[in-house]
Amino acid sequence: MELKPTKPLSGFIELLPAAQRFVDECAARMLGVLKSAGFSYLDLPAIERAEVLTDKDNWDEIETQMYLFQKGDTKMGLRYDGTVGLARYVAGHLNDLTFPFRASQFSKRYRGERAQRGRFREFYQMDMDIMGVNSLSTNYDAEIIAVIQRTLNSVSEFIGDNYVLVGSRPFWDSLFDYLKLTDAQKKEIFILIDKRDKISDQEFANWLSDVLKNEKLENEIKSVFTNGYKDFVNKSDNLDAAISELNDFMKVLSDFGVKNAKIDLSITRGLAYYTGLVFEFKLKSYPELGTAAGGGRYANLTEKFSKTKIIGVGAAIGFSRIFVGLLESGKIDLAQFENPIVAAVLPMGNSVVPFAMDVVNKLRDKNIVAVAYLDAEKKFKNQIEYADKIGTKFSLIIGDDEVKTKEISVKNMATGEQQKLSVVDTIKLLKTA
Amino acid sequence: MELKPTKPLSGFIELLPAAQRFVDECAARMLGVLKSAGFSYLDLPAIERAEVLTDKDNWDEIETQMYLFQKGDTKMGLRYDGTVGLARYVAGHLNDLTFPFRASQFSKRYRGERAQRGRFREFYQMDMDIMGVNSLSTNYDAEIIAVIQRTLNSVSEFIGDNYVLVGSRPFWDSLFDYLKLTDAQKKEIFILIDKRDKISDQEFANWLSDVLKNEKLENEIKSVFTNGYKDFVNKSDNLDAAISELNDFMKVLSDFGVKNAKIDLSITRGLAYYTGLVFEFKLKSYPELGTAAGGGRYANLTEKFSKTKIIGVGAAIGFSRIFVGLLESGKIDLAQFENPIVAAVLPMGNSVVPFAMDVVNKLRDKNIVAVAYLDAEKKFKNQIEYADKIGTKFSLIIGDDEVKTKEISVKNMATGEQQKLSVVDTIKLLKTA
Repeated sequence: MELKPTKPLSGFIELLPAAQRFVDECAARMLGVLKSAGFSYLDLPAIERAEVLTDKDNWDEIETQMYLFQKGDTKMGLRYDGTVGLARYVAGHLNDLTFPFRASQFSKRYRGERAQRGRFREFYQMDMDIMGVNSLSTNYDAEIIAVIQRTLNSVSEFIGDNYVLVGSRPFWDSLFDYLKLTDAQKKEIFILIDKRDKISDQEFANWLSDVLKNEKLENEIKSVFTNGYKDFVNKSDNLDAAISELNDFMKVLSDFGVKNAKIDLSITRGLAYYTGLVFEFKLKSYPELGTAAGGGRYANLTEKFSKTKIIGVGAAIGFSRIFVGLLESGKIDLAQFENPIVAAVLPMGNSVVPFAMDVVNKLRDKNIVAVAYLDAEKKFKNQIEYADKIGTKFSLIIGDDEVKTKEISVKNMATGEQQKLSVVDTIKLLKTA
Repeated sequence: MELKPTKPLSGFIELLPAAQRFVDECAARMLGVLKSAGFSYLDLPAIERAEVLTDKDNWDEIETQMYLFQKGDTKMGLRYDGTVGLARYVAGHLNDLTFPFRASQFSKRYRGERAQRGRFREFYQMDMDIMGVNSLSTNYDAEIIAVIQRTLNSVSEFIGDNYVLVGSRPFWDSLFDYLKLTDAQKKEIFILIDKRDKISDQEFANWLSDVLKNEKLENEIKSVFTNGYKDFVNKSDNLDAAISELNDFMKVLSDFGVKNAKIDLSITRGLAYYTGLVFEFKLKSYPELGTAAGGGRYANLTEKFSKTKIIGVGAAIGFSRIFVGLLESGKIDLAQFENPIVAAVLPMGNSVVPFAMDVVNKLRDKNIVAVAYLDAEKKFKNQIEYADKIGTKFSLIIGDDEVKTKEISVKNMATGEQQKLSVVDTIKLLKTA
């Protein structure tokens, strides 16, 4: 019989236990930050109706990358982000939620793009969104950025420092109006700006020239990437308003305790959703990971689902991109995650298993991570080998003597030191280990 | 423009925030039990190659229920349980893992069965498995059962008491041999026993008669459901061995601290995987939920993937079945999960937002769940209405005076009592709230 393949599909992540404990620890810390910031965790379906997922206004590539399928008469597919399900959920529960509503998500998303290093087909993102009915202060945009920075800082021992770049969709919209571009040209240029860090300057220039066919216009667009908004002060009311909003916002960010923020108008977040301020987080020490988190403001999140206008600001942290990326490039020392077992209980024969399991249960009751070696008839040599291999801190050796005296032989596996202790004293020792 | 549907697909779960907090709390407690028992948490892909998922030896209905699709040349599908991926993973990492290896999983599974109350198409199961190379004491079967009972007991305030029924596949195999049944008859009868609690006694008798066409044999099979193994003592060596194993095991279970266990030979766990002892947990107060958890021993988990023989014992807790089931039937009082916010910070105008956010950050640093109302130019009336709606314990009102004196107006929302406190004293008060 031919054996089936043991590798997961290309682009799908599975980790060995220590690496899994590392990502779980990072997720727990980051979700703790979101909880303390009052975000309601939502666990939405991974499968949505195809009509909910497909959206011509959304970015072009997504549809070819989607996992779509049919069951009975129903066309459906796997979500590619957290926003489309959130929009549906919020529109369906307008009367059940209090606005401004804070939602967090941490779930798998699916994109069938060509698998390559750091690009996954199944990956985790951690989302946070704040949504209001009809109005929402840009203070909330600052709050989202501040909260992302807190989540990233909670794992800074692994990922180092971060910084945030802030852009403005209204700036570009006003600039395009000022330059009298057509709708088709606007859309093309947004796609082009989004691809800018994946192509050479020359490719960018050629593409821009293909779209605009006007050297003066091309130079004006290019100037944004070198001089920012400087050349466009006092050119139109809308441009001035966008520039003011951006400058005011940087002041608010600083008031919110956000460090390392700066304006970067090349940040546009593609075509997706956004209509206001947009931002991206990068990791200082790991530029090769690209964008660690990104988000922005959308004028009407739920317009496909409801007539009520829901303004939102939201962001996604590229959780797998960051943490699986760092694991894959060998940047994480997993030593502290290798050996979670505090006590291996080794019963010398089946007759002492009841006493051994009583000890195990007492340890677990105190949240001491304990396992028993339950092929109890095996030799001591086999049992202590197992204890050694799992890297337990202590081995608790239990034979007939130990059952009689109710004292356990406790072996410190690092020092080799062994002592007889009552169960109560064993727990005391292990609690502080 | 026609609005898109806001309901999730039929059979897919999504919960309001309080209900989500309830299931999250239950999951956290139960996963904590598994962690203290030394299980390594694995997060495996939800998508597997079709050839990995489809397995003629497995139970008949699963293939028609699977979500299968194709991307490029690759046929794939969504997992329907945790075992198939675990088998692939363990076979692929034989040299990376220490055996006996303890694995836990908590993940979404997918079955496209007809949606009905308590049956979901996307649902969570919590799995635990212990696997050994070539041998594995039945002590581990007892340990799995003891650990399941601990996980269920950790949430007993919501689900009440549980009991466990233990069956034996070797008993039935030996009985079928003793009765000289054909392989086709054996398979049919396993399917039939599995369906027994979904059909009437008459339907069961008719079906049995169709398969066996022999009244004496039919009566012998039926006697198991009324008299257990009593009529089959001293009939064959294999039957006696199976009966002894079962009786010895009940003694071990008791030694492991398992309460409320009894033999029930009608438990067979269908056709899937199992070759040894099998078991099912039920909830005393909620028989309508059916099986809360089930599992058993398999002689060779990885035979489709590896020549190394991996013996395992494992089980799955029907997490969504239990907790979403209880929610849907209104059996859970969500009061304690409704209002997670401890402090709502209400800034009276944008000028005091920096001070307000400084307070918010200090609270969050101390793990006090705090939100700020950041449409700060809105009237006090709007702000306090929001604080009331989210059910916050305290409102922290911040105006120009508060910024000047560095003292916050702290309002206890339950009593209406209001006092001025320094930030330090506010934290002290809220920490104990």
